[in-house]
Amino acid sequence: MCQEEELWVMDEWDHAHGRGLSVKVSKHIETKQTPFQKIDVYDTESFGKMLVLDGTIHVTEFDEFAYHEMIAHVPLAVHPEPKRVLIIGGGDGGAAREVLKHASIKEVHLCEIDKEVIRMAKKHLPFVASSFDHPKLHVFYEDGAKFIQTKKNSYDVIIVDSPDPWGPAEVLFQEAFYQDMFVALTSDGIAVTQSESMFYNQELIQHLFAFNRRIYPVVIYYFTLVPTYPSGTIGFSFCSKKYDPVQDMRDITISELRYYTPDIHKAAFMLPQFMDNVVS
Amino acid sequence: MCQEEELWVMDEWDHAHGRGLSVKVSKHIETKQTPFQKIDVYDTESFGKMLVLDGTIHVTEFDEFAYHEMIAHVPLAVHPEPKRVLIIGGGDGGAAREVLKHASIKEVHLCEIDKEVIRMAKKHLPFVASSFDHPKLHVFYEDGAKFIQTKKNSYDVIIVDSPDPWGPAEVLFQEAFYQDMFVALTSDGIAVTQSESMFYNQELIQHLFAFNRRIYPVVIYYFTLVPTYPSGTIGFSFCSKKYDPVQDMRDITISELRYYTPDIHKAAFMLPQFMDNVVS
Repeated sequence: MCQEEELWVMDEWDHAHGRGLSVKVSKHIETKQTPFQKIDVYDTESFGKMLVLDGTIHVTEFDEFAYHEMIAHVPLAVHPEPKRVLIIGGGDGGAAREVLKHASIKEVHLCEIDKEVIRMAKKHLPFVASSFDHPKLHVFYEDGAKFIQTKKNSYDVIIVDSPDPWGPAEVLFQEAFYQDMFVALTSDGIAVTQSESMFYNQELIQHLFAFNRRIYPVVIYYFTLVPTYPSGTIGFSFCSKKYDPVQDMRDITISELRYYTPDIHKAAFMLPQFMDNVVS
Repeated sequence: MCQEEELWVMDEWDHAHGRGLSVKVSKHIETKQTPFQKIDVYDTESFGKMLVLDGTIHVTEFDEFAYHEMIAHVPLAVHPEPKRVLIIGGGDGGAAREVLKHASIKEVHLCEIDKEVIRMAKKHLPFVASSFDHPKLHVFYEDGAKFIQTKKNSYDVIIVDSPDPWGPAEVLFQEAFYQDMFVALTSDGIAVTQSESMFYNQELIQHLFAFNRRIYPVVIYYFTLVPTYPSGTIGFSFCSKKYDPVQDMRDITISELRYYTPDIHKAAFMLPQFMDNVVS
């Protein structure tokens, strides 16, 4: 995060090549260095409240719905009856908020390594951190990669809502973690993981897909539109033991969605030619 | 375009709210003030060569294919036999390059108001300006809004490849222009027009759709992904006298496409819920 003159900050997407999103800040609300990362909360005219981790925009009031609806409702509309869900990361609460809209859910575990993310989200971003008092939600302040090693046949759906693969989240992009998730999933389970931009992170995605195709019978990339993320789009790896994300989807009846529709669910798996080449 | 220290420039997407794309420049290749606009060409590590009109990124080597393939191949895959095509704007040559890949094409008219755009694109961005010597392409250095008034029943497809609706392109977003296009189209003609971002320009799009629904039997929004444009996505109005963009599409056989596929064609018309609400 390179501080420009006065009240602009830049989320420097790529220092080596030189590009980033510049945002005018109306107020720097809080800053905190934790053992894991630097957390900042800003207020902005363009994007409302903004949660920034180590200089990278993580959540904004403006477009978080496009990310959280698509990371949550796609797997939950494919699994025929999701009851137990694990969210790794997701300390802002947005993914949990969406998961808890599904009537079949009995229990949601949320494993966030950094307690301060949850505290600051609850304090400053109540629009995402709206479900932490929900009786079905249980929060664990632990390292997600270690937490998952203690689980076996436990979750119908695992959602990995992580920041970029450097700093505390690096381990969440490694093969061992995906193998441990496979064990932690039920026999027809689905894992969906934040998998970066089809424009800027093709090598990383190819690496993820190469080892995941050895672990999971179904591995498919899908994407959503998030203007405040690098390139304006971000994708997910849909890793499934049994179900196909398009053939096996159900119509879900959840009101007040702003991004997800059954058609968008299907369309999100249709990739531009260059990205088809990356993942095939 | 706010010049930051040293070699960074910012395409200030929205001055009022305060947001923009910052790009590190390795070389400022040429700058020219014409009667219509200021034109800059930069070289950058992130996006290669970059053509900037009045401070707004218009074309980059990195992602122009995603824009030009989708503005050209979608209407040309819907019209059963497009022979005569008009491009309004498009002085960089990218839309013409894509149109000319279709075997049925007999004649392409390109009407660009600013001769300097074409000269600078040919000189510095040959990867887009690659078709200006093509025998089927005829260039007119005229005001597109006036040019169209002289045409009747002339074009199977009209492509409006314009910059944003201020400065020289303002008139291309007005009802009279869309009415004139209707007259200039053949009885089963299709017009496709650059129609801005579903995230940042909802009022403009609603305005366009309100009057276009009075003019054209079929008016539908579709989108593509362009990381260097505001919000990372840009859309088009598909205005058609007869054909439906999805029901009536043909499989086109064009090699070396990087974005367009038949599935992407269909998926591009599937909009997030919030955007469905804007255009319905």
